[in-house]
Amino acid sequence: MDNFQFYSPTEFIFGRDTETKAGEMVKKYGGTKVLIHYGSGSAVKSGLLDRVKASLDESGIAYTELGGVQPNPRDTLIYKGIELCRSEGVDFILSVGGGSCIDSSKAIALGVPYNGDFWDFYGTGKVVEKALPIGTVLTIAAAGSEGSGASVVTKEEGSLKRDVGSDLLRPRFSILNPELTCSLPAYQTACGATDIMAHVFERYFTNTREVEITDRLCEAVLLTMIKETPRVIAQPDNYEARANIMWAGTVAHNDIVGVGRSQDWNSHGIEHELSALYDCAHGAGLAVIMPAWMEFVYKHDVMRFAQMAVRIWGCQMNFEFPDETALEGIACFRSFLHSIGMPINFEQLGAKEEDIPVLVEKFGLGDGKTGGFVHLTSQDVATIYRIAANAGL
Amino acid sequence: MDNFQFYSPTEFIFGRDTETKAGEMVKKYGGTKVLIHYGSGSAVKSGLLDRVKASLDESGIAYTELGGVQPNPRDTLIYKGIELCRSEGVDFILSVGGGSCIDSSKAIALGVPYNGDFWDFYGTGKVVEKALPIGTVLTIAAAGSEGSGASVVTKEEGSLKRDVGSDLLRPRFSILNPELTCSLPAYQTACGATDIMAHVFERYFTNTREVEITDRLCEAVLLTMIKETPRVIAQPDNYEARANIMWAGTVAHNDIVGVGRSQDWNSHGIEHELSALYDCAHGAGLAVIMPAWMEFVYKHDVMRFAQMAVRIWGCQMNFEFPDETALEGIACFRSFLHSIGMPINFEQLGAKEEDIPVLVEKFGLGDGKTGGFVHLTSQDVATIYRIAANAGL
Repeated sequence: MDNFQFYSPTEFIFGRDTETKAGEMVKKYGGTKVLIHYGSGSAVKSGLLDRVKASLDESGIAYTELGGVQPNPRDTLIYKGIELCRSEGVDFILSVGGGSCIDSSKAIALGVPYNGDFWDFYGTGKVVEKALPIGTVLTIAAAGSEGSGASVVTKEEGSLKRDVGSDLLRPRFSILNPELTCSLPAYQTACGATDIMAHVFERYFTNTREVEITDRLCEAVLLTMIKETPRVIAQPDNYEARANIMWAGTVAHNDIVGVGRSQDWNSHGIEHELSALYDCAHGAGLAVIMPAWMEFVYKHDVMRFAQMAVRIWGCQMNFEFPDETALEGIACFRSFLHSIGMPINFEQLGAKEEDIPVLVEKFGLGDGKTGGFVHLTSQDVATIYRIAANAGL
Repeated sequence: MDNFQFYSPTEFIFGRDTETKAGEMVKKYGGTKVLIHYGSGSAVKSGLLDRVKASLDESGIAYTELGGVQPNPRDTLIYKGIELCRSEGVDFILSVGGGSCIDSSKAIALGVPYNGDFWDFYGTGKVVEKALPIGTVLTIAAAGSEGSGASVVTKEEGSLKRDVGSDLLRPRFSILNPELTCSLPAYQTACGATDIMAHVFERYFTNTREVEITDRLCEAVLLTMIKETPRVIAQPDNYEARANIMWAGTVAHNDIVGVGRSQDWNSHGIEHELSALYDCAHGAGLAVIMPAWMEFVYKHDVMRFAQMAVRIWGCQMNFEFPDETALEGIACFRSFLHSIGMPINFEQLGAKEEDIPVLVEKFGLGDGKTGGFVHLTSQDVATIYRIAANAGL
C-alpha cells in the first residue's frame, strides 16, 4: 500500500425531506449571504428551489440566485456567477442540482477571491489557495462531486474540458435526499450509475500490490450498483434502491475506496473529449469508452481483470485460460451497460469514427504518455476510440 | 434506509514514517502546548516517543507528557491528566498509543473545559459541548477510536465501564503508520483484529431492510480481515497485511459502513462487563461473547445470518434448510477466532461461569431491554453468558 492522506470533512445529511435543513446548515458553516446556483427548470418546477429558499428564510439567511447551469458546465456562466458574487457580497455558495451544478459552483467559489481568470486553475496544476465555502443539495446520484474536491468545467471557446482538485473545494455540507432523484428519467439515471461505476473502476485498476481493503471496498460499491441500477430503471420510484445508489455514488468518489493505490483515470480523460465535442452525457460517453479501454489494456494484468470477472460479475474462474475469464468480465460489463439503456458504440452515442483524429488531437497528448495503470500514447488512445466506435455485444 | 448524518472530518495521514509529521499536524490544527498522552513503556522503548517529540520540537511546539495509560483506561489517570492540562495551559492532546490511550485522551479533552466531574458524560447521554482538540499517533489497529467520536473508560471504584460519543471528540488528525504495529505480539494483534470484526458485525446485524451498500461495505471489511489476519499472525512483519488491517480498522468504525441502518451493540455491552471484571483484553472478550450472541439471536433473521455465511465465510447456501447455513457461518466465525489464537469460552478467557449473576447485575439492565437487532432481557444476557461459558468447536 502506498502512503496516503485521506481527508473528507464534508458533513452529509442524508434522507427524506433533508433539503429543509439547508438554512440551518448554511448557518452552521458561517454563511450569511448565499448564491443559490442551479441548473435547468426542474429544480424550479418541482418546487425544490422554493423549499430551499423557505429554509434559508427560516434561518434568516439572505440570498441571490443564478440558474442555467448546463450539463458539461460552461465557463461563460461561471464568469457571470463570479461577478454576481462580488457585486452582491456573497460569502457562501449553495449548489442545488447535480454534478455539473456543483462543479460550476466550485469554479465560482475559487474564482471569487482570485485576482485573475478562474480558468488559470483548470488543467494546469495551479494550487487553489482560497475559495468561498460551498454546500450542496444533490439532485442526481452520479458525479460524486458532493463529497469530492474536484471540479470539471468546459471552456466554450475550443470546447476544452479541464479539471481542478483541492481540499478547499470540498463542500462543507451535502444534503442527499434520494426522493429528489426519483423523478429522473431512466436515461439520466443510467448515465449517473455508469459514472459511479467508472469512478470505482478508475481506482480498481491499479499497479499497487496487496491492497485488499480498497479492492474489497471498490467491489462493494460495484456489487451494489449491479444490484440496484436495474431496479431503479424498472421502478423509478423505488426509494430504497435510489438511496443505495445515492450513497454508493458518494462513497465511490470521496476516495475512501481509492486511497493508498495508484489510480488510472484514462477512461475519464478519453471520454471528456467525446462529451466536449458532441455534448453527450458524460456517463453515456463512459459506457462507450470504458469497456473499450478495458479490452485494450487487460493483458497488462490479466489476473486483476479475472478478479473483476469473478468477484464482481460472478464469472467462474477459468484456471487454465485466465484470459478468457478476464474477457468474460469485460463482456459482462458491456452487456450490463446495454441492459440499463446505455450506448455501447459511437453510433449509439451519436459520435463519428471519422472524428477520431480530432478527438486525439484535442486529447492533447502529443508525443507524451498518460495513465496510472497503463501508460497510453496518442496512438493507443486512437485505438481505444476505434474499439469503442465499433463495439458490439 | 434510515435518514442519517455522516461526518468524519478527521485528517488521516497513513503510511511509513508518518509519525514524523506529528508536529506539522499539531501546528496545522492550532495546537501550541501539547499533552503527549501514552501508555506502557513500549512507545518509549521503541523510540517512537522520541521521534514524536523531535517532530514537535521541529515545529516549535511545547509539550508536557503523561504516560501510564492501561488497557481498559481508568478514571484515576484521567483526573490526573485533566489537572495537568489545566496547570500547564495545554490546548491540544496528542495520543501516542492504541484505543485505550485515545479513549483516555478523549476523556481528558472533554474534562478540561468542563466545570465538574468528567464522569458525568459517561453512560448518561449528557451532551459534550466543549472539548480540547486531539490528534493521535496510532500503534494498534483495533478500537477505531482514531476515527470515531467515541470513548470507553473504566471507573476503578466498582469496575464500571461506560462510554460517551460526540463529534467534538473526533480526532483532528490521526497518524497511522502500519510499521508501528509490526512489533505487536500475536495475541494483541488477534485481539485487535477481533475488535475490528466485531465493530462491523455490530452494524451488520440490523433490522433495517434494503441496505445493500452498507451490507457490502461491511462485508468488504470482514473479507479483508479474514484474508489478512492469519497472514500477520504467521508473519508479524508483513507490512502490506498490517497496512490493510490498519485501514480496515478505521473504516470499520468511523461509521461509513454503518450509516442509515439500525445497529445492535449488545455484544460490546455484554463483553464490557467481562473486561471490567477480569481485566481481560476487550478483543478476547468479544471472541467469547459474539459467536454466543449470534447463536442466541440467529433465529430472529435466519436469512441475514445465511447471507453472512455465504458472502463472508464462503459457505454454500442450503436452500432447503437455511438455518443450517446460518449456523455454519457462526461456526466458521468461532473456528476462525480459534485459529488466530483467541479464546472461545470462559475457561480459555479466564472467566468463571459462577460469576454470571454478578456480570448480569453489573450489566445493569434490571427489568429493561436493550439492543438494536434483538431486544435482550437480563435473562437473555445470562443465557448468552452461559452459551459463551461452555462454547467449543
